[in-house]
Amino acid sequence: MATLLIRNASILTPRGLVEGSMLIEGNRIAKIGSIAQIGKTSAKADSIIDAKGKIAIPGLVNAHTHVSMTILRGYGEDLPLDRWLKEKIWPIEAKQNLADVEASAYLSFCEMIRSGTTAFADTSLFDPSVIMNAAKKAGMRGIVAQSFLDFGNEKKTKEALANLASHEKKKFEKSVGSRERDLVSLSIAVHAPYSCSSELLIKAKETADKTGLKLQIHASETRKEIFDCLKERGKYPIEYLEDIGFLGENCILAHAGWLTKREIASIGKRKASVASCPISNLKLATGGISQITELDAAGANVALGTDSAASNNCLDMFQTMKMASLLQKHHYWKADILSTQKTFAFATQNGARAIGFDSGTIDIGKLADIVLLERGPNLVPAHDILSNLLFSAGSQNVCDVIINGNIIMQGRKILNLDEAKIMDRAEKVAQDIKTR
Amino acid sequence: MATLLIRNASILTPRGLVEGSMLIEGNRIAKIGSIAQIGKTSAKADSIIDAKGKIAIPGLVNAHTHVSMTILRGYGEDLPLDRWLKEKIWPIEAKQNLADVEASAYLSFCEMIRSGTTAFADTSLFDPSVIMNAAKKAGMRGIVAQSFLDFGNEKKTKEALANLASHEKKKFEKSVGSRERDLVSLSIAVHAPYSCSSELLIKAKETADKTGLKLQIHASETRKEIFDCLKERGKYPIEYLEDIGFLGENCILAHAGWLTKREIASIGKRKASVASCPISNLKLATGGISQITELDAAGANVALGTDSAASNNCLDMFQTMKMASLLQKHHYWKADILSTQKTFAFATQNGARAIGFDSGTIDIGKLADIVLLERGPNLVPAHDILSNLLFSAGSQNVCDVIINGNIIMQGRKILNLDEAKIMDRAEKVAQDIKTR
Repeated sequence: MATLLIRNASILTPRGLVEGSMLIEGNRIAKIGSIAQIGKTSAKADSIIDAKGKIAIPGLVNAHTHVSMTILRGYGEDLPLDRWLKEKIWPIEAKQNLADVEASAYLSFCEMIRSGTTAFADTSLFDPSVIMNAAKKAGMRGIVAQSFLDFGNEKKTKEALANLASHEKKKFEKSVGSRERDLVSLSIAVHAPYSCSSELLIKAKETADKTGLKLQIHASETRKEIFDCLKERGKYPIEYLEDIGFLGENCILAHAGWLTKREIASIGKRKASVASCPISNLKLATGGISQITELDAAGANVALGTDSAASNNCLDMFQTMKMASLLQKHHYWKADILSTQKTFAFATQNGARAIGFDSGTIDIGKLADIVLLERGPNLVPAHDILSNLLFSAGSQNVCDVIINGNIIMQGRKILNLDEAKIMDRAEKVAQDIKTR
Repeated sequence: MATLLIRNASILTPRGLVEGSMLIEGNRIAKIGSIAQIGKTSAKADSIIDAKGKIAIPGLVNAHTHVSMTILRGYGEDLPLDRWLKEKIWPIEAKQNLADVEASAYLSFCEMIRSGTTAFADTSLFDPSVIMNAAKKAGMRGIVAQSFLDFGNEKKTKEALANLASHEKKKFEKSVGSRERDLVSLSIAVHAPYSCSSELLIKAKETADKTGLKLQIHASETRKEIFDCLKERGKYPIEYLEDIGFLGENCILAHAGWLTKREIASIGKRKASVASCPISNLKLATGGISQITELDAAGANVALGTDSAASNNCLDMFQTMKMASLLQKHHYWKADILSTQKTFAFATQNGARAIGFDSGTIDIGKLADIVLLERGPNLVPAHDILSNLLFSAGSQNVCDVIINGNIIMQGRKILNLDEAKIMDRAEKVAQDIKTR
């Protein structure tokens, strides 16, 4: 089993900062402490990173994104969600082929790695294998799904149901319920309550339950969605999902920006995950602030996401963490509404829990997803390390990235990917689609 | 006169992107175009920067900050403004000496340079010469003021008035009204309507008018301030400032987060500047969103600021620009409320106008404050350059910084300052103050 020693770091553990070293055996953290505490194995480590002056933090988890859309960054600016989707995004996505998706995925992984993200949850309209393969090559951890939608169209419902049935037949998880899952795993996804028939939603939930895969959906993103749902069904979207038996621990509800108190209680009771995407919500002027403080108190698993780079316009979880925290303070007119510790957990351990991996903290036995941050003037002084991480740190501090025990970026160089080529290809593809 | 040639850049001018080169003569931009258009002088330039693959943008202007407080980053978290000032900030500031202020200022300039800020407006409780000298050494452009406050205490009023009188006696501006001002200039500042007597406010305004110096004040930051002012004076804070003749083109109103329509009209009519600090307002849960779109429409000069690193917790204007834009979209439930062009102007040319310098755009004859951004995955693709600059760019892209025609950072190395020493000193000082 390959071993990696990270020396001389300030290590952020669940019990506070440890000044010392960390031994990774295979894909898990084996030891944390002084070199003496780590013992003889430290001298024989296969790889050694000297992290003097650096802070080791758990990798950030992006619990809601669409890597196929990164090549649409800056395309379709200044529109509300409804018009943005119908006038700009869906028409151009209809012209995207799988090679474009691949180019966009690789670009996304470069951006994620550079901004300290080690795991992600993705949905797209495309066959998931292209994105899964690109993620594997990059060395990223994640879950990937094709998102089904039928708009109540019978033919589309049939297609989606057939596709879901094929999911059931495959053995997707090497060992569901055991500690090990594939680094990149498949997930089930349905687009949204407003774009899917109840038949499709129910079947998706059944498939997720049977296969042990995570179940992703957009829900309660815009006020329009709420009004439409009330008008059509006489219920709020999450009420509706609860009534058809959709909510559960395997659910990831993206956005959840317009919730009634009763819906918050339902999500909490079902221990579902919420992937709040504050930057995208503001950019598309959805008007809602996800009540993540109340969701957390109700028992929901609150995680954070960037949404796509087409509505953010980054895949930067440092920005997202900071925004999530600031918006809670603002929304409740209460500067201490949400602790820095809790917000940081949303972006790390809760994200890992949402997407189903045993990572998200730096602790003995945990999967080794670690980011080393270099000191810069923006991180001085160190009155409060967690506050610095939440409010002051950024991509400019991200120096080294380790995922599943593998070194993915070292000294700001991404190892598994040819970044310059990826940027050139993505640029070319992005311009080309517009001419089709 | 020294000349600097920047070659092969994508140059953001007021008329769009120019692919080419730029010649700087002394401290001003002399030519923009192809090497052939620039002519023979290009071959003889004293310095040459090859900017292949880089975007040249005007340096960002931080129109409201407190560099003396950067060593308080992360000190006093999770408190509303009133308690934050009284319980944490003012007590520790009382222990700060001028050497601490100097250490904090140098740290601030490192952070500003690394995040593409070339000019700033500062106020502090301290003698301004320490900060001015540090700024000169760093090569930063800015205005610096000691902020007076008397809380209606007669002795303090007398001291402040004497100090203001001494400002009048000095010749602060080499040539008020001409094109050239000192790179670092003095400014007049009074703390806030709630902390200053009307006598002090009126005298400050008179002094600013007589000397030609800019006049900085915090105003309408919190809802408490509004209530207190209404109770005490029967007027809103900006109404009160208008009634005592305080508002004018030389005014910079920091925050202005709680404004009535009538106050917006007053600020616009007087062509005063507003320095909106959205991140700090959210962090301290002031509850207000500065109506910068309406202020701009009313004729005010809208600029943006970070406020101090103790309530932000960065001095990063990329973050501030993005937040300012997102909050307008959110506040008005309108994704196209404010164009990217306008928001970018707030952070550049309007900032320059607020603090009184002939910079803020890349154009012939303008002061040469220029930032070169390196491409990264977060800036690909280039569907919309301005949108990329506003929503996707960050400190990680800032590679070279030119201020007043001088190269201040090159290839990510800050030239005039010893950054490592500055960080060490700031850390030491920050920890030391707490023990006093």
